[in-house]
Amino acid sequence: MKIGVVLKVLGALFLVLAGFLAFPLLIAAAYDETSALAFGGSMLLTGGLGALLLYLFRRCEADVGHREGFAVAALGWVGSCLLGALPFVFSGEPAFSSITDCVFESTSGFTTTGASILTDIEAIPRGLLFWRSLTHWLGGMGIIALSVALLPLLGVGGMQLFRAEVPGPTADKISPRVAETARLLWTVYVGISALEALLLWLGGMSWFESLCHTFGTMATGGFSTRNTSIAAYDSAYFDTVITIFMVAAGTNFALHYALLRRNWTAYFKDAEWRVYMTLFGGAMLALMLLTWLGGEYDSPWTALRYGAFQSAAILTTTGYATADFEAWGLVVPLAPMILFMFMFIGGCAGSTGGGMKVGRVWLLAKLGAGELYQLVHPRAVRPVKMNGRVVPPEVLRSITRFFILFMGLFALSVVAMSLLGLDFTTAISSVAASIGNIGPGLGNVGPTDNYGWVPMAGKWVLMLDMLLGRLEVYTILVLFVPELWRR
Amino acid sequence: MKIGVVLKVLGALFLVLAGFLAFPLLIAAAYDETSALAFGGSMLLTGGLGALLLYLFRRCEADVGHREGFAVAALGWVGSCLLGALPFVFSGEPAFSSITDCVFESTSGFTTTGASILTDIEAIPRGLLFWRSLTHWLGGMGIIALSVALLPLLGVGGMQLFRAEVPGPTADKISPRVAETARLLWTVYVGISALEALLLWLGGMSWFESLCHTFGTMATGGFSTRNTSIAAYDSAYFDTVITIFMVAAGTNFALHYALLRRNWTAYFKDAEWRVYMTLFGGAMLALMLLTWLGGEYDSPWTALRYGAFQSAAILTTTGYATADFEAWGLVVPLAPMILFMFMFIGGCAGSTGGGMKVGRVWLLAKLGAGELYQLVHPRAVRPVKMNGRVVPPEVLRSITRFFILFMGLFALSVVAMSLLGLDFTTAISSVAASIGNIGPGLGNVGPTDNYGWVPMAGKWVLMLDMLLGRLEVYTILVLFVPELWRR
Repeated sequence: MKIGVVLKVLGALFLVLAGFLAFPLLIAAAYDETSALAFGGSMLLTGGLGALLLYLFRRCEADVGHREGFAVAALGWVGSCLLGALPFVFSGEPAFSSITDCVFESTSGFTTTGASILTDIEAIPRGLLFWRSLTHWLGGMGIIALSVALLPLLGVGGMQLFRAEVPGPTADKISPRVAETARLLWTVYVGISALEALLLWLGGMSWFESLCHTFGTMATGGFSTRNTSIAAYDSAYFDTVITIFMVAAGTNFALHYALLRRNWTAYFKDAEWRVYMTLFGGAMLALMLLTWLGGEYDSPWTALRYGAFQSAAILTTTGYATADFEAWGLVVPLAPMILFMFMFIGGCAGSTGGGMKVGRVWLLAKLGAGELYQLVHPRAVRPVKMNGRVVPPEVLRSITRFFILFMGLFALSVVAMSLLGLDFTTAISSVAASIGNIGPGLGNVGPTDNYGWVPMAGKWVLMLDMLLGRLEVYTILVLFVPELWRR
Repeated sequence: MKIGVVLKVLGALFLVLAGFLAFPLLIAAAYDETSALAFGGSMLLTGGLGALLLYLFRRCEADVGHREGFAVAALGWVGSCLLGALPFVFSGEPAFSSITDCVFESTSGFTTTGASILTDIEAIPRGLLFWRSLTHWLGGMGIIALSVALLPLLGVGGMQLFRAEVPGPTADKISPRVAETARLLWTVYVGISALEALLLWLGGMSWFESLCHTFGTMATGGFSTRNTSIAAYDSAYFDTVITIFMVAAGTNFALHYALLRRNWTAYFKDAEWRVYMTLFGGAMLALMLLTWLGGEYDSPWTALRYGAFQSAAILTTTGYATADFEAWGLVVPLAPMILFMFMFIGGCAGSTGGGMKVGRVWLLAKLGAGELYQLVHPRAVRPVKMNGRVVPPEVLRSITRFFILFMGLFALSVVAMSLLGLDFTTAISSVAASIGNIGPGLGNVGPTDNYGWVPMAGKWVLMLDMLLGRLEVYTILVLFVPELWRR
């Protein structure tokens, strides 16, 4: 691997990160918060590191190949999570007195997980809250670039199947095509974000809160500025708006782009999106019926409002909450179980959502069913199709092995969390909520709890899970393959 | 499919089953129990049905092909589970007043699961207890025939990889070879069973109890004649004997056969067995250290005794208990979690153990790791090996799809159990303990609980899971593929 190239690209990334630190700095300054100093220091350090790397490796050609692509993605994310913790570290806030907690909050942000160590969010200065939400949004931008443009080219976990059909300039080299595709989709991302922020502001949120919640929605993150998340507003309007935008954020952004280009039927022609919407619709109705008939809500409309929000929040792996779905479990245990299963499925490929991705799960189901047919007809050849096209065997192989590794890492992490003393439900759901980039789980990390109490070693395990989940498992794991590092 | 052939073979099977009913009948008669009548009636019905099928389809050639093999295995098991419930139904015991409960106990027996609906086992007449344990032992014989001889030939879930290397008479036809292989391994099964029964009897158990516990051990079943399972004896001798025979029952019986043929190193040359013993040894030591250092036991030797027993009981999917491992969780949550993970792994292929099988899990781990290598070297070809030989791609494909279906059915069943009102831990662990053919789980189906309280619909879901797990998932599922039934 050409480590120089990797470090040069990382340098550029860190400079961009330092640039984005200007926003919370301005907000902190505007509100006369002392945390402005923390942002100033963080900007200097982050920008200085970026500039240093760019200077040291200025002579390396920025020619990112196969191995360098992995290293840039993985180290870029890890570096951002670490550098993004600096404002929390420098803030002097009592809630951020432990370095582990600062890195946890930053990692949870950049991986768009939304698990928080904070017990009293509203006591935190606005600059820090804004940064927290902004890490989501930046993470979401990173995911779009990664999942739509880079990972498919690297052949990770069959993602090539869900490659964006965005027409970019044709070129022989990988890099310009990747950059162009990412740029187009970022435009969509910024556009939809602006629309959501406007709608939230029109509904009566302050511009600060509407921006923060937009960041959390569009990145399927889940950090809020309120202790009780979206429930704090108790507004059917906000619930509806955020539900719709969560569903949009869990959709392949290439489909939104197709809509802009007046391809009105793109959504419905996409098999993954149809399955995704069926899952969302089914869960919405099921939760409505269960909570209404179970006596949790008097009116079916109220039940629908809360059912739809919670379904979207978990399936898209956002993790916002307007109801304590764990408390629903006391009446109807099925309700939290549906949401728990959704943690593994996640959003669509090419969205900002986490989990295993709807398309992968759908293909896995087709594979299992196909094997039955094969047993009855040992000599028959019936290829697996998606969107009318035959799925290449190497893609199927990648997806099945992705599933194996995902479940294997899930099991190992659950054992590790149990070793640290977490009970059965909390161990299982904290790992599911982290590796799936959701945020809230069940047990002691439920929608009304936080991760502050988790033992320090447990926080590091969950951070690793967040990164593994966010970077489609392989991108982090290949860092441990010695061959990657050979020249 | 030639349904006549299938029904003829089933007729023969039911006649054999009726023959075995003579043993509990004799015991009930010897102890002057009224349940002797129940056994008499059951024998007549079962034998009558068998004779009728044999007579009706006497002209069908007993030429079992590919599709017929599936149907015989699946329907043979389902039929035995139903007919095996007759003695419970006819017994008039208050504990067996519900048909569902009778079928549950019989299914749990024949699938060697060991989950019981009984709250007071010791109140049940001896004839019925003997039959209950005998269903385990007969189920174990069935599994040996199925997993070593039949399933590999049908290409189910990659089992062909673990085909017994037992030399039988070479023949062109499948049937004689299957029969011969099964006969040889049954001899081993009967021999080891006799040895265990002798050792338990020498240790002071009555011949009745030593036989019942031998049946439960050798089939990795778990039914006991005591309310508190093996803990009732509180004997280090019994614990040790049963631990050793559980480990033997979870071993590929072809390896035991190799030992008889003086191939002393067969065990150690088998990669699956080495992984199996490593898992057992590792868990034994881990549980010893955890329960000793956690203060559960004063002496490391006591901790070792209980750690070894519980590790073997769950890994081999027997489900006997000498300690409430769920209570250990209050001190060291890792202890029950290790055992919970073992529920998915199970015994070796070609053993009477359930679960996914050690060999499959081992190959899945190798596949996941191999994919990482592949990502770094996109053009490299590095085949997966086991026991020094390259594993054919179609075997790997079968194993990965087995994993997908196993986990998919697990998830669906957990959702179904939640729908019926079971809490998170109980829903998850009752399904894991059923599809893995273990017996005790966690929560309300823990080692000190029973399945009597589970809602009726839930019992049927768990019975289906037991059959799915026992017949390597596919053998049951293909029954629902319409093509299987075409002539």
